[in-house]
Amino acid sequence: MRRLAAAGLVLGLLSLAGAAQAKKNVIFILSDDHRYDFMSFIEAAPDFLSTPALDRMAAEGMHLRNAFVTTSLCSPSRASILTGQYAHRHGVVDNSSPVPQGTRFFPRDLQKVGYRTAFIGKWHMGEEDDRPRPGFDHWVSFRGQGVYENPTLNVNGRRVERRGYVTDLLTDYAVEWLQSQRGSKAPFFLYLSHKAVHAEFIPAPRHLGRYGEAKTRFPATMANTERNYRGKPKWVREQRYSWHGVDYPYHGQLDDFDGFYRRYAETLLAVDDSVARLLAYLGQHDLAKDTLVMYMGDNGFLLGEHGLIDKRNAYEASIRVPMLAWAPGFIRAGTVADTLVRNIDVAPTLLALAGADTSIATDGESFLPLLRGRPRRSLQREFLYEYYWEHAFPHTPTTFALRGERFKYIYYHGVWDRAELYDLEADPEERHNLAEIPAFVGTAKTMHERLFDRLEADNAMQVPLRRSHWQAGERLLGK
Amino acid sequence: MRRLAAAGLVLGLLSLAGAAQAKKNVIFILSDDHRYDFMSFIEAAPDFLSTPALDRMAAEGMHLRNAFVTTSLCSPSRASILTGQYAHRHGVVDNSSPVPQGTRFFPRDLQKVGYRTAFIGKWHMGEEDDRPRPGFDHWVSFRGQGVYENPTLNVNGRRVERRGYVTDLLTDYAVEWLQSQRGSKAPFFLYLSHKAVHAEFIPAPRHLGRYGEAKTRFPATMANTERNYRGKPKWVREQRYSWHGVDYPYHGQLDDFDGFYRRYAETLLAVDDSVARLLAYLGQHDLAKDTLVMYMGDNGFLLGEHGLIDKRNAYEASIRVPMLAWAPGFIRAGTVADTLVRNIDVAPTLLALAGADTSIATDGESFLPLLRGRPRRSLQREFLYEYYWEHAFPHTPTTFALRGERFKYIYYHGVWDRAELYDLEADPEERHNLAEIPAFVGTAKTMHERLFDRLEADNAMQVPLRRSHWQAGERLLGK
Repeated sequence: MRRLAAAGLVLGLLSLAGAAQAKKNVIFILSDDHRYDFMSFIEAAPDFLSTPALDRMAAEGMHLRNAFVTTSLCSPSRASILTGQYAHRHGVVDNSSPVPQGTRFFPRDLQKVGYRTAFIGKWHMGEEDDRPRPGFDHWVSFRGQGVYENPTLNVNGRRVERRGYVTDLLTDYAVEWLQSQRGSKAPFFLYLSHKAVHAEFIPAPRHLGRYGEAKTRFPATMANTERNYRGKPKWVREQRYSWHGVDYPYHGQLDDFDGFYRRYAETLLAVDDSVARLLAYLGQHDLAKDTLVMYMGDNGFLLGEHGLIDKRNAYEASIRVPMLAWAPGFIRAGTVADTLVRNIDVAPTLLALAGADTSIATDGESFLPLLRGRPRRSLQREFLYEYYWEHAFPHTPTTFALRGERFKYIYYHGVWDRAELYDLEADPEERHNLAEIPAFVGTAKTMHERLFDRLEADNAMQVPLRRSHWQAGERLLGK
Repeated sequence: MRRLAAAGLVLGLLSLAGAAQAKKNVIFILSDDHRYDFMSFIEAAPDFLSTPALDRMAAEGMHLRNAFVTTSLCSPSRASILTGQYAHRHGVVDNSSPVPQGTRFFPRDLQKVGYRTAFIGKWHMGEEDDRPRPGFDHWVSFRGQGVYENPTLNVNGRRVERRGYVTDLLTDYAVEWLQSQRGSKAPFFLYLSHKAVHAEFIPAPRHLGRYGEAKTRFPATMANTERNYRGKPKWVREQRYSWHGVDYPYHGQLDDFDGFYRRYAETLLAVDDSVARLLAYLGQHDLAKDTLVMYMGDNGFLLGEHGLIDKRNAYEASIRVPMLAWAPGFIRAGTVADTLVRNIDVAPTLLALAGADTSIATDGESFLPLLRGRPRRSLQREFLYEYYWEHAFPHTPTTFALRGERFKYIYYHGVWDRAELYDLEADPEERHNLAEIPAFVGTAKTMHERLFDRLEADNAMQVPLRRSHWQAGERLLGK
């Protein structure tokens, strides 16, 4: 499970790139809670949805359509992206966890091989702490979740109040920084981390109402029917009437589910604009052939699946993320990759691309060969999913899962409930829990054993106990 | 929290004992799942109950009527007794946990100061491993829970099959060993650990039916009424129809609750006989004045309280244990001690009595001064309770509690449920959860903070994740 991202393996590949510059620039764009299927080029996307820039990235680059997170929550997933480690290793297990002393993020290793680096946007590890972090030459961030409009930013340690819409402002900072790099011989690494499309969804003024009365299409598993809950754990149905359930979303603050759905899609429009601006900039400045642009979501977002909203659980809509890679001349246009890739693979991939060595003991594996058109399947394409129960959101239990190409096994710790097994090929909507079906009991048992083998091997046999002072909705009660 | 049991403090006391022998002999008798109130001298005991030997211990010695366990489960509590440590420190967190390498049990320290030591009976740490353990010169034990009739014993490493009733056989071994110590100048420490009265209750043949049609008196909190569950956590009511609930006890293997209740009391009769024989032996051989006999239960046992049977939870019937100390001439006859004492205090107390130093970092505190009639209250009489969720018995959540003299605060980790706060003086039956009552919200909050302060200070901020292969009742399904 522990692998040091090895630079040597990919030096050969880099020479193939044949660019004037030895090292590729990288723009890594992270969105927040963006569902894997909310990109208009995807067949399963809502008919009304329009994401022309993301569509362009897919058309001119690669769509990695089996991209996943190993933990479906903002801060833990972000820490996994930046370290290539599972949450049980990096220790950022929830949105208020501090980043443990001594944690190393991969941009520090990019600096070591000559990259100029910038972080712009939502950090959200350490909650209220927005100070510049090691590994970045340039820093624009904000506290916690931030706000959509008129944000207070931390620009290289200085508090700055800005008027305007956050997605646009962050893009402005990104473009400005790219401009500041002109004339430099050093390769650049830009980490643009959007607040959007995190709830509460507030579209840019220019996009508000764009989808008007567009017809929302809710998932078949949303209805509160016996059929939908047959075989499902108790906690799933119970969660319907909770902060993260369709019957009492955000404890009553949300009473218009169709509007919620449409605003989510409208809020995404500025993110797409952001991507469009960056691609345009690269084109205008002859940077396209030297730059890899990667687009990714930090976790999925349920919009009614199994009666739920939000994320945290191990269902597909929660753990699948959009992922696109665009690098004309380097990545073949219009490629669709089926190989399973994960948030923990990003650090090793970008380290490999940069020819950087690192002391991070990553759990992930570089998929740079995949980007280069070598879609060989690794033998290890079953990954561990983990989520640790939060006092603030107690309706989702501690979850461990193994997600393979065909089967997913989900185990809940700490509650009196059932495990789940899904055949994702036959049942992509995860409607039929096979864990207790005689023909599949053996599969469930062996996956259960593999899951614990892996946790034991990783010294991950504990659930972090976190002190928590508040609970979702408490602030409402206090009103 | 960490205290080394200091020998020096009590040397003065020992000189007061004025016995011919410098060190007192100790017989420590542990029963299994014996409720604190099932001793006939106690007013709250069932009218029909008869425990003359335990009554004699109380009349001639001391009844410690506020005795508790810090974790209400066999193996963890036994490890706490033998180490003086909380479960989060000694690491024996459930009945199948191995004893971590390097664990030190206090009888080893008794050996060092000249004691001859014997362990006879149920060990139950490490489940199927019945091998002799360090610290004992003489060893008679059995695998796991053992059996009531015709047990296979491990006698000093040799497997021996015996005919007869286990409580009597263990007492035979105890008396034999005492006899073997005659003529020795060394003090002795006998740890007699009964299997009784653990379920499934099988009384000695001579006691079967003794309580015939005796009228059982069930607790007021047993009925499934809205009043009984008002303010209670969901898991409590849900547990009614479970392995450990009164509506489906042992998954249907138990269909006669009155008989269960009476057999529990009948099974206790042989334990009382065992105590009687040991006291008689001490009297016959002029050992009474040189010997301390301590009687204790490893945890409580619910007989219908809150609709539950068994233990594990933090309610009074689960965490209170019987405790008696008898040492004519040393302990004043007929004393009733109100001071709160715990399983983790036993090791420091007996080490202090023996004048033994130890390298165990105990969490407990000696109550030897209390036995000597100095019932000064320590300032620290609020203790931590902990129970870690088991896959095999999933209906009881991970539980942390603080149990003080007046208030008890209970926190559940990992489930969507409510915390509890009881005023034990006003509400000894724990019927009125005050956690959300405005006048007590402040008390609940400060106890919550104290609970986490303590866990943090003890480096106990994790819930052990244990691999488990079976679930209660699975064996039934396989039939």
